[in-house]
Amino acid sequence: MRSVSLILALVCVGMETQEEGSPATTNVRGAGYPQIGKDGRITFWLKALEAQRVELQPGGDDNGLGRGPIAMNRGEDGTWSVTTPAAVPGFHYYWFLVDGVAVNDPGSETFFGWGRQTSGIEVPDPEGTFYEIRDVPHGAVRAHWYWSPVMNEWRRAFVYTPPDYDVSIESRYPVLYLQHGAGEDERGWSSQGRANFIMDNLIAEGACRPMIVVMDRGYAQQGREENRFGEVLLGELIPSIDGAFRTRADREHRAMAGLSMGGAQTLQIALMNRDVFSHIGVFSAPLRGFDTEGAYGGVFRDAERFNDRVALLWLGAGTEEPRIHGPLKAAHEALKGAGIESVFVESEGTSHEWQTWRRALRDFVPRLFREE
Amino acid sequence: MRSVSLILALVCVGMETQEEGSPATTNVRGAGYPQIGKDGRITFWLKALEAQRVELQPGGDDNGLGRGPIAMNRGEDGTWSVTTPAAVPGFHYYWFLVDGVAVNDPGSETFFGWGRQTSGIEVPDPEGTFYEIRDVPHGAVRAHWYWSPVMNEWRRAFVYTPPDYDVSIESRYPVLYLQHGAGEDERGWSSQGRANFIMDNLIAEGACRPMIVVMDRGYAQQGREENRFGEVLLGELIPSIDGAFRTRADREHRAMAGLSMGGAQTLQIALMNRDVFSHIGVFSAPLRGFDTEGAYGGVFRDAERFNDRVALLWLGAGTEEPRIHGPLKAAHEALKGAGIESVFVESEGTSHEWQTWRRALRDFVPRLFREE
Repeated sequence: MRSVSLILALVCVGMETQEEGSPATTNVRGAGYPQIGKDGRITFWLKALEAQRVELQPGGDDNGLGRGPIAMNRGEDGTWSVTTPAAVPGFHYYWFLVDGVAVNDPGSETFFGWGRQTSGIEVPDPEGTFYEIRDVPHGAVRAHWYWSPVMNEWRRAFVYTPPDYDVSIESRYPVLYLQHGAGEDERGWSSQGRANFIMDNLIAEGACRPMIVVMDRGYAQQGREENRFGEVLLGELIPSIDGAFRTRADREHRAMAGLSMGGAQTLQIALMNRDVFSHIGVFSAPLRGFDTEGAYGGVFRDAERFNDRVALLWLGAGTEEPRIHGPLKAAHEALKGAGIESVFVESEGTSHEWQTWRRALRDFVPRLFREE
Repeated sequence: MRSVSLILALVCVGMETQEEGSPATTNVRGAGYPQIGKDGRITFWLKALEAQRVELQPGGDDNGLGRGPIAMNRGEDGTWSVTTPAAVPGFHYYWFLVDGVAVNDPGSETFFGWGRQTSGIEVPDPEGTFYEIRDVPHGAVRAHWYWSPVMNEWRRAFVYTPPDYDVSIESRYPVLYLQHGAGEDERGWSSQGRANFIMDNLIAEGACRPMIVVMDRGYAQQGREENRFGEVLLGELIPSIDGAFRTRADREHRAMAGLSMGGAQTLQIALMNRDVFSHIGVFSAPLRGFDTEGAYGGVFRDAERFNDRVALLWLGAGTEEPRIHGPLKAAHEALKGAGIESVFVESEGTSHEWQTWRRALRDFVPRLFREE
């Protein structure tokens, strides 16, 4: 009887594992965990023989993995695991707390967020094909290095060039400057955000014009000094891009957008430099004290002039980030009241996370450079 | 007296910190540690309030940080630190062991090595300007995606295009296929290896011909299946590169090189496919049972034919990796005895680490595609 039970037990374990799901696509090669079940539940796993306490810490309290820290259970072999409820689709940062110390998951790729390299997991979305790699022509993401006299350093930006860039060698392209959020960097939009695949898919569908997308680091400061990113962008990055790539180097063919901190930077930089940018995208920017009179040098006071000059002012947020969504929607309403044309687009069911911003990019980009 | 001592202590701490050196260039933005002193000693630091034991673990036993694990000392505030002896210049993987659990340093960038994302530190080398970013024209490193029917997956390779690639739009370029070592991936050569800066600097000096460098992932296997990378490279990657880039798509203008596991793959793939490759570079490959009679389908039996066909067979290793250096040098001698032309280049004072392979690339690349 005992051996029969053992065999049954083994069969059941095998079956359970199979039913439980598949390693996440964000796992490193060969890592079995984290594992995502067909029901969307995720099993996390860590070996920590001597630990007294191991917890799963989602990045933030509205992260789609649930509120943390989430206690993990010790197995007899000194491994720890936990299975979450069904997770929200999209990309979520996480780490483990091993006796209080933040530890990346050795089974996962890392992503620059929270000011450091952090584990992340991609939870599949049935409606997520727009950011998946598909069998369409692919543009390139290139590391572009430029010297910054302002910062006295070499800086790296990533530049997406559309699929026909190397073929249509006489063509010139409009440019979108696309910024990440706080604690992230120039890698965010292509790595976590999958901006290049979103662009490839939109271009393949004919849904947007082929364009160049420039993703730089939104920090230009030493220690606690003021952030001089605006100076770097306007005086150094844009000339460097216009020198190195076949751009259409005028305001009509230049857009700026950003998420969270990058959205606030976009408002500040693009609204104050309307001779440089004509299209503006503000994804989940935290607004405080927005008023249509005084804000941004009083740019909203003359609605007719603004509407004539700014081809697009796009505002958007997820419905599950109320402290961001509310003020942004209110700003949109106030702008409307002042006669300023803007659009407000919300992402249903998503929070202050990349899923909101992938959707924002998908909605924003087809509206760009449509004027001719 | 007590307050005077306290003030003196604070002053001394401040001075000591200043004298101790600078944050490593591999640190994340704003992280003070690890810190490299002018004397080459490195101070590592981690906050782990509840830990019983914290150690520094260099990646490997011949890593330039010393042999680990190295005990770290607990301060009264629950932070742990240790200062190493002067470290060997170059790039070293490391991690912390917190009560036995491998933990990345939150102050450091991560690099894919050891089969996972791992902390790494760049120790400056006075003779390292050849791999630093300099004020010369820069090529681009592009992510190139291609579909692999063999693996039924999209694969990513990184492709270096030389600085004049976008300007000399009629030019076609020779191609070097450049492979990483075990536990690393397609990011290794540009991230840890700085291959793009090495190429930029060599091209700027006129020391080598402008060329394209393709860096792919040397793994093409599911679970414990056989590695089918050779199949992928020959049947899928090369046609994809020749289709997407302005290459000179013949054997005379195609080279292959690799480090460690990638060197063994280079020997296997390039020597067995001399109709595809004409130049071969073997950096620190582990050799076992090399014989000039039977090896690689007996390719070394006809020296005259080999020398006529293979334009370059380059072998090299660091002097501080004796188990690799010895057999490779012996192979070179045996080849010489058999009338086979090869070169053997050693890297003085370096081990099975990226410093050896940066130097190898610097020596290898100027010897390529010189025949016309």
